[in-house]
Amino acid sequence: MTDRMTEELTRGVPRPTGAGELFQLLRDGRPRTRADLAAVTGQARSTVAARVDLLLSSGLVAPAGEAASTGGRPPVTFAFNPRARAVLAVDLGATHARLAVTDLAGQVLVEHHQPLAIAEGPDVVLDRVARVGTELVREAGREPTDLVSVGVGLPGPVDHGTGRPTNPPIMPGWDDADVPGHLGRLLGVPVLVDNDVNVMALGEHASTYPEVDHLLFIKVATGIGAGIISDGQIRRGAQGAAGDLGHIAVPGGRDLPCRCGNTGCLEAVASGSAIATALRSEGLEVASSSEVVALVRAGNLAASRAVREAGRDIGGVLAACVSLLNPSLIVVGGVVAEAGEHLLAGIREVVYRRSLPLATQHLRIVTTRTKGRAGVLGASAMAAEHVLSSAAIDASLG
Amino acid sequence: MTDRMTEELTRGVPRPTGAGELFQLLRDGRPRTRADLAAVTGQARSTVAARVDLLLSSGLVAPAGEAASTGGRPPVTFAFNPRARAVLAVDLGATHARLAVTDLAGQVLVEHHQPLAIAEGPDVVLDRVARVGTELVREAGREPTDLVSVGVGLPGPVDHGTGRPTNPPIMPGWDDADVPGHLGRLLGVPVLVDNDVNVMALGEHASTYPEVDHLLFIKVATGIGAGIISDGQIRRGAQGAAGDLGHIAVPGGRDLPCRCGNTGCLEAVASGSAIATALRSEGLEVASSSEVVALVRAGNLAASRAVREAGRDIGGVLAACVSLLNPSLIVVGGVVAEAGEHLLAGIREVVYRRSLPLATQHLRIVTTRTKGRAGVLGASAMAAEHVLSSAAIDASLG
Repeated sequence: MTDRMTEELTRGVPRPTGAGELFQLLRDGRPRTRADLAAVTGQARSTVAARVDLLLSSGLVAPAGEAASTGGRPPVTFAFNPRARAVLAVDLGATHARLAVTDLAGQVLVEHHQPLAIAEGPDVVLDRVARVGTELVREAGREPTDLVSVGVGLPGPVDHGTGRPTNPPIMPGWDDADVPGHLGRLLGVPVLVDNDVNVMALGEHASTYPEVDHLLFIKVATGIGAGIISDGQIRRGAQGAAGDLGHIAVPGGRDLPCRCGNTGCLEAVASGSAIATALRSEGLEVASSSEVVALVRAGNLAASRAVREAGRDIGGVLAACVSLLNPSLIVVGGVVAEAGEHLLAGIREVVYRRSLPLATQHLRIVTTRTKGRAGVLGASAMAAEHVLSSAAIDASLG
Repeated sequence: MTDRMTEELTRGVPRPTGAGELFQLLRDGRPRTRADLAAVTGQARSTVAARVDLLLSSGLVAPAGEAASTGGRPPVTFAFNPRARAVLAVDLGATHARLAVTDLAGQVLVEHHQPLAIAEGPDVVLDRVARVGTELVREAGREPTDLVSVGVGLPGPVDHGTGRPTNPPIMPGWDDADVPGHLGRLLGVPVLVDNDVNVMALGEHASTYPEVDHLLFIKVATGIGAGIISDGQIRRGAQGAAGDLGHIAVPGGRDLPCRCGNTGCLEAVASGSAIATALRSEGLEVASSSEVVALVRAGNLAASRAVREAGRDIGGVLAACVSLLNPSLIVVGGVVAEAGEHLLAGIREVVYRRSLPLATQHLRIVTTRTKGRAGVLGASAMAAEHVLSSAAIDASLG
């Protein structure tokens, strides 16, 4: 074979050292001896020993004490060491930012929440993110070189391949902005970007429901969107637009006009904004989703009724999602979910009535328990996965 | 480590020979030299040579001529040999069966179509399938030992893990029938079972659109169902019920009663049966989906109008699917799709109007080109995959 052919055949193909694959076995955190690893993989003891040495040299795996002896010197065990490096997790909303520095297993080391208007544009916002992020790494007691990657959730559609926003409606100045390039230049590490709802779905899955392979996360706030976990992975679809259920027509829903130009869209009838508008038409003074939630919590009957009705409309669309995707768990988040049982009751009423028994017999519908942290937890998981995949480990050690 | 611990740690974990992984590279059918394979994998020439020998001994890989020489003796190339074995592909409908013997790349060697009432029950039907299948293997000029697996599509919900039907509405006597056990005993090879629509989706993907990672297949016949390919794989959901869109409520649809107990389900307003019922109420004599199609083809205006209207209702549900899954291709199959452009025109009209531009700008909507063979092609792909995965190859050679 000519050199040219070799080059053509090998272009872009990482040469696996095998250490990356071995590392995936260790990611569950359970300590194992070299003999354990040889037994599980069927590889020669010498091969395993060499790969463990590579992983030890990286710091990603560390000695974890001695195993019980069966006679003779007790063997050493090894385990994933998530504190070896740190990632920066960034959750940007329309008017706020939440940043966290976490270890490689999503443990939050330090966290920061501040008002930040996304409308100030990418230059101002990303410069501030880099500045605050650098400060947080220091606050966490880590060296700047410990930071290995950054995960960012943005409140609008993102081309996942390039990490650039695509015509985001509430992010003036951000269309096609090179977010990974900009932050990468400032922080010197890879930057992963996705829309906020996908990132929240990842966060729910990684932090609270790692054993659930089919999970649908729905965010009900000023807008409505969903993130889909299927067979354990986030599914983004052909253009990264999967989960965009805010503009699905509600079956039997009211024919209200939507900003997208159609009528009867889920967002137009059941979002926080839609509920606020409906309540204003009943003479209540309510400007935002948060104020809707406050009214419900204060026991206002009209607000409770409106939220439950919105839940039914959301349930109508979620019933279609259940028939189509057959998830075993739906997690409801976003500010309107803080209204509590009224929203959930409306959703459950319609989903269980409108879906087939086979799809709902094991279906749970719950509200998020991440207390506003789903975004940073998902951004952390996305950033950590980027440096901990088999291919990434092999590339870094190769 | 004690033997007991070793056993616990290794239970169910195949010892990879590495040959399975090497084989995946060769599955595209392109001839490669040992040096090519060493270059692509980064493995030692001696390792590659040993693995190639294992694959040659299995017959799954065969010499494929000589590469161009760069001086000296020209090196031998190797390629996947899909004719090394055969699989039996079975597509069972309510009243017919289509069986095929194919090679491991889905090439049909011999095919058979016969009337067969699924209502005769699993014993009668599966005995006949085994008898006809055995005969077809002989007709294809293959030895009985060449048969390595069987793929079966059934017209009802199937628990993919066990291969057993789950309360199938049009398959009396089949609930929880051990289809893989029964056929496996008669034919002596593994049997994979899924519902007909998932199998048809696999067939479309494998035979016609292997490069499309996000594909939705919808079958419009007596009933309506869909199969979902996402990130290149069929997605079955938590209970294998994914894609069951016949009972999604049509937005703005007519409030007709459905056999499931709800009203306004897609099947109740737009299936072949529903169209036939509507046409009968207009005084036309039409008993089945096929007769609807025949009327359309004969130029009957009422039938054409009814099919187009059904297309719009289907489009209303598919628009939700597009927003949720963001596929790049929708393939419409089933007998009603044979009515031609009327159905497709109705679907397109609503999908493009009711979905967001980001999700539809690269979306194609087409009718199947497999001429009734999607089922057997998918059953073949499912059966072949079962014996050609890395793990299966390693297990057979280990």
